[in-house]
Amino acid sequence: MDSKFLKSMNISLDLALEAREVIRGETGQEIPGVRVDKETYDHASVTTVHIEDHNAQVIMGKPVGKYITIEAPVIRENNQQAHREVTQVLAEQLKKLFDLPMELNILVVGLGNWNATPDALGPRVVDQCLVTRHLYNYAPHELQGGMRPVSAMAPGVLGITGIETAEIVRGVVEKTRPSLIIAIDSLAARSAERIATTIQLADTGINPGSGIGNKRSGINQETMGIKVLAIGVPTVTHAAIIAQDAIEKYTQSIGGQPGDASMAIKKVLEPFGGNLTVTPKEIDTLIEDTAQIIAGGINMAMHPGIGPDDYAYYLH
Amino acid sequence: MDSKFLKSMNISLDLALEAREVIRGETGQEIPGVRVDKETYDHASVTTVHIEDHNAQVIMGKPVGKYITIEAPVIRENNQQAHREVTQVLAEQLKKLFDLPMELNILVVGLGNWNATPDALGPRVVDQCLVTRHLYNYAPHELQGGMRPVSAMAPGVLGITGIETAEIVRGVVEKTRPSLIIAIDSLAARSAERIATTIQLADTGINPGSGIGNKRSGINQETMGIKVLAIGVPTVTHAAIIAQDAIEKYTQSIGGQPGDASMAIKKVLEPFGGNLTVTPKEIDTLIEDTAQIIAGGINMAMHPGIGPDDYAYYLH
Amino acid sequence: MDSKFLKSMNISLDLALEAREVIRGETGQEIPGVRVDKETYDHASVTTVHIEDHNAQVIMGKPVGKYITIEAPVIRENNQQAHREVTQVLAEQLKKLFDLPMELNILVVGLGNWNATPDALGPRVVDQCLVTRHLYNYAPHELQGGMRPVSAMAPGVLGITGIETAEIVRGVVEKTRPSLIIAIDSLAARSAERIATTIQLADTGINPGSGIGNKRSGINQETMGIKVLAIGVPTVTHAAIIAQDAIEKYTQSIGGQPGDASMAIKKVLEPFGGNLTVTPKEIDTLIEDTAQIIAGGINMAMHPGIGPDDYAYYLH
Amino acid sequence: MDSKFLKSMNISLDLALEAREVIRGETGQEIPGVRVDKETYDHASVTTVHIEDHNAQVIMGKPVGKYITIEAPVIRENNQQAHREVTQVLAEQLKKLFDLPMELNILVVGLGNWNATPDALGPRVVDQCLVTRHLYNYAPHELQGGMRPVSAMAPGVLGITGIETAEIVRGVVEKTRPSLIIAIDSLAARSAERIATTIQLADTGINPGSGIGNKRSGINQETMGIKVLAIGVPTVTHAAIIAQDAIEKYTQSIGGQPGDASMAIKKVLEPFGGNLTVTPKEIDTLIEDTAQIIAGGINMAMHPGIGPDDYAYYLH
Repeated sequence: MDSKFLKSMNISLDLALEAREVIRGETGQEIPGVRVDKETYDHASVTTVHIEDHNAQVIMGKPVGKYITIEAPVIRENNQQAHREVTQVLAEQLKKLFDLPMELNILVVGLGNWNATPDALGPRVVDQCLVTRHLYNYAPHELQGGMRPVSAMAPGVLGITGIETAEIVRGVVEKTRPSLIIAIDSLAARSAERIATTIQLADTGINPGSGIGNKRSGINQETMGIKVLAIGVPTVTHAAIIAQDAIEKYTQSIGGQPGDASMAIKKVLEPFGGNLTVTPKEIDTLIEDTAQIIAGGINMAMHPGIGPDDYAYYLH
Repeated sequence: MDSKFLKSMNISLDLALEAREVIRGETGQEIPGVRVDKETYDHASVTTVHIEDHNAQVIMGKPVGKYITIEAPVIRENNQQAHREVTQVLAEQLKKLFDLPMELNILVVGLGNWNATPDALGPRVVDQCLVTRHLYNYAPHELQGGMRPVSAMAPGVLGITGIETAEIVRGVVEKTRPSLIIAIDSLAARSAERIATTIQLADTGINPGSGIGNKRSGINQETMGIKVLAIGVPTVTHAAIIAQDAIEKYTQSIGGQPGDASMAIKKVLEPFGGNLTVTPKEIDTLIEDTAQIIAGGINMAMHPGIGPDDYAYYLH
Repeated sequence: MDSKFLKSMNISLDLALEAREVIRGETGQEIPGVRVDKETYDHASVTTVHIEDHNAQVIMGKPVGKYITIEAPVIRENNQQAHREVTQVLAEQLKKLFDLPMELNILVVGLGNWNATPDALGPRVVDQCLVTRHLYNYAPHELQGGMRPVSAMAPGVLGITGIETAEIVRGVVEKTRPSLIIAIDSLAARSAERIATTIQLADTGINPGSGIGNKRSGINQETMGIKVLAIGVPTVTHAAIIAQDAIEKYTQSIGGQPGDASMAIKKVLEPFGGNLTVTPKEIDTLIEDTAQIIAGGINMAMHPGIGPDDYAYYLH
Repeated sequence: MDSKFLKSMNISLDLALEAREVIRGETGQEIPGVRVDKETYDHASVTTVHIEDHNAQVIMGKPVGKYITIEAPVIRENNQQAHREVTQVLAEQLKKLFDLPMELNILVVGLGNWNATPDALGPRVVDQCLVTRHLYNYAPHELQGGMRPVSAMAPGVLGITGIETAEIVRGVVEKTRPSLIIAIDSLAARSAERIATTIQLADTGINPGSGIGNKRSGINQETMGIKVLAIGVPTVTHAAIIAQDAIEKYTQSIGGQPGDASMAIKKVLEPFGGNLTVTPKEIDTLIEDTAQIIAGGINMAMHPGIGPDDYAYYLH
């Protein structure tokens, strides 16, 4: 599968890691202006793709910035201990991406449609976030040292609200004046193996064309006036890509040279507007588990001084 | 039960009809500055309480304005035909309350907490509203004549977002510039018989202290700068009132004179912050049915030129 | 796509209509022992495939019997009027499949996993069925003439209960002695266009290998001792089939002869046990709408003498 | 409040602890044939009421047997650490109540209505139980030593199925031949403080009249032929009791002697069939948290040799 195919199918890869793989697969070498770091944990590996200059931005189709990918196949297993470790890895990586005084406001934005399971990750995370903005001023002084004023919202999608998501968020930003937005979104992956096993953090926010709702408007420094961290998890993959993978594998198996299959695939997918996505049957459970990990990681990173036990005593 | 008891328990009656009954029960005559109209339908009766001057406002504890109460016990029955009739009555009454050119924007606001069944009415209505603002400019001209640009949002509650609900709504109002807000809320009734059988429309919006989330901030002309219609449905009743009713009935039965029972009731309800509400066990179904009626009534009133069949062909 | 491919991928087509299409595509002529009728309605077409002898049974991979397919693309539109028409068509077709005295018990069985949206159709239908078995003896005599004693259950899936579904149903059948079972199940379709637009009725019950939970045990005359009608709706399609369709379309487009692609496709789908299904993102709404139509059709067919208004007055 | 009042209101107290309190309040001394033990833990206290003879059975209105009550107000707090401790206490107490060889089958039965939040505890526990009956024979030998073959079902309520719950369970028992049933049910408490803070284990099973669905049929040794452990959690309280408490408190406050208030209370509650229950608004969260604790406790007690990490590797 090459970038020409993706372009002809109008698919943009949400994960920087996958975008890089495709391009490297074509050129056989690292992309100029792209730098990659790796870390390994017990149940997770972390790869950071740095897009460092304008040239790399054009090739990758993603803004200059840092894209941290946590790969943790263990999320799909019912292993609570391992889930806690992934939560901690997420919290650590999140903390690296911002450096804010404790007293500054943070706004968590859960993007997506709460009525469509594969797109409901963002709203589910919001439901589990520890919001403190309304309590902050009443909290004991010694507690304030370890917690931040956090607010959270799930603005919905255009089809439910009739309003561009970015407009709603901007309205709330102007009223509540946060210093940072953390936006959570469902993504589409190139590889179905990544569904509910990969978490991407990006310091570039949400940019048009990303997300499975695929007309998400930009929620980034430019549109919001403040820094936006994006947390994304693939919850679907494109049927077009599975079809293309199969064609390539088959053509190879008969010793042929794969040509341009985009027209053929478009015809097969036409009845669905070319936009059919693949979701595992167990998606309900996967969204549940992933939302818990993401919310846990955000809570830990935001409120370093609050242990699980403090939640109850001080904040409910 | 008298107004002194309600004051001592810090309960304000959400339904104007009930507030009037209590005061009239005490004075034995109509309240000066309050005027009442009645209409009767097959499956519903409609009572309009007009609060006409400042004096009446003070006595009733509700702003000057119109309070239309639709009483339809049939909502609690599984009778779809009758539900459709109540929906039509609601649409007619709604239309009386506003007189707007077709092209002006309307914002539907579903108040309440989507994670607490008795408080989830507003968000459930939003999910079923026919939002058109994002499609309006692309719709065929002949259709625009019969539909309005409508947007909708469920801002959540302070405990979930950390932000005053009114702040969120105001932010969105400033961005999208609607000409009218329709706000839907769950209410507390004096009488448990009213749960999911009574709908109140008020042209005065949401005023502090109303709603079962009971610290709802004001969403009204004053705070929003535009007219706000409120649609409320009782989904709970106060345990304190049931207790007081029982005390009165008992005291009468033994030939006594009921004294002030508020201290005794407070002691019984103390373990729950004095704020225990009563909800029927079948509340899930009741919320579902009521949300469908409210959303149906709003859709009919907003888009008079669109029949059920047009929804599919033009708007999906 | 031919039957050899399906066999090598271990896919059995749940819809008789699709199984027939594949085989006829290969032989170019009607299958001996298979007979087909057609009817057309405003918003639906009805095709009945009769499998009439053992030979046809072997070729089709489905037991001798009647398979009625209602094709109604309008189910995916938000058109309530058309949904009511499809409901009526379903009720009519259902009535053709059984001829039982009014007083005999009927058991509705909603197969599938209520925690996995694409597999939750059966349980959702059960929630909306008009069950009357416990009321039947108390109902007025004139009403009994128009209604049947109906009970309903959602036995769950092996992974949730640890018990073979058929064992649970058989246990309940032995206790309650119904004369007929109506079993509702989610199916997998060859064509994604059929998701939530096609309803199949079969007088042969549920047979091993059908259903998206794909290890459904048989629920049929043989295992239950009574007649079993199956109602199935495709809610997913096989990723393998989309891949194969794309390979064929592509090979044709380059003027080639498609060979056996099953190995290549298996490799692409391997990470998911070869068993990846495709579900549209809006599956939540589709299940909701389809469940309402199926339950409505069953209610109409079971209780011919009860109009929508009677439900409320007599039966709640 | 005395037992005469309860009888006249047709209320039977589900918790043995509360039944004993009422009777002792009247007689001022321990009931003959009733013996009580206490244990104290960090976040929970455990009281065991032994009903030891027929005389005590008649007075208490509950069969001879052991009733273990775990009181843990911490369940209502968002304190995960404390929830884990309560889970462990529950597991320990459960283990005391049965003494079965590892290889014998156990059936978990989640009573109640999954569509009515306060009655949905049982079905929610079933969704989180580790069922192993279908895997047991394939599990590695060393694992079998530490786990039991467990199956689980949520039979629904009469109004949804049209079948007596006990009939459904008996049908499944006859097919699957378990050696023990663990039945989970929502209860009604005398005191609203007990909602979602108290867990009762009883080795006498479910007896007619208990549970908030209050026509639950008996699921006990007599009807099932095997031992039945019941786990119950109060999720509602009776409005009648709150009313009576208020009347008593008030009468005392004016120095009077409380007489029989049952007629007065009946009149107040009449519009609801005298059967109004009180549920806190946050019931959705409370059911969620309680179900997790109950399921966790059952899993620990059933499968002593399986740590959280094994779940994933061996059993999914």
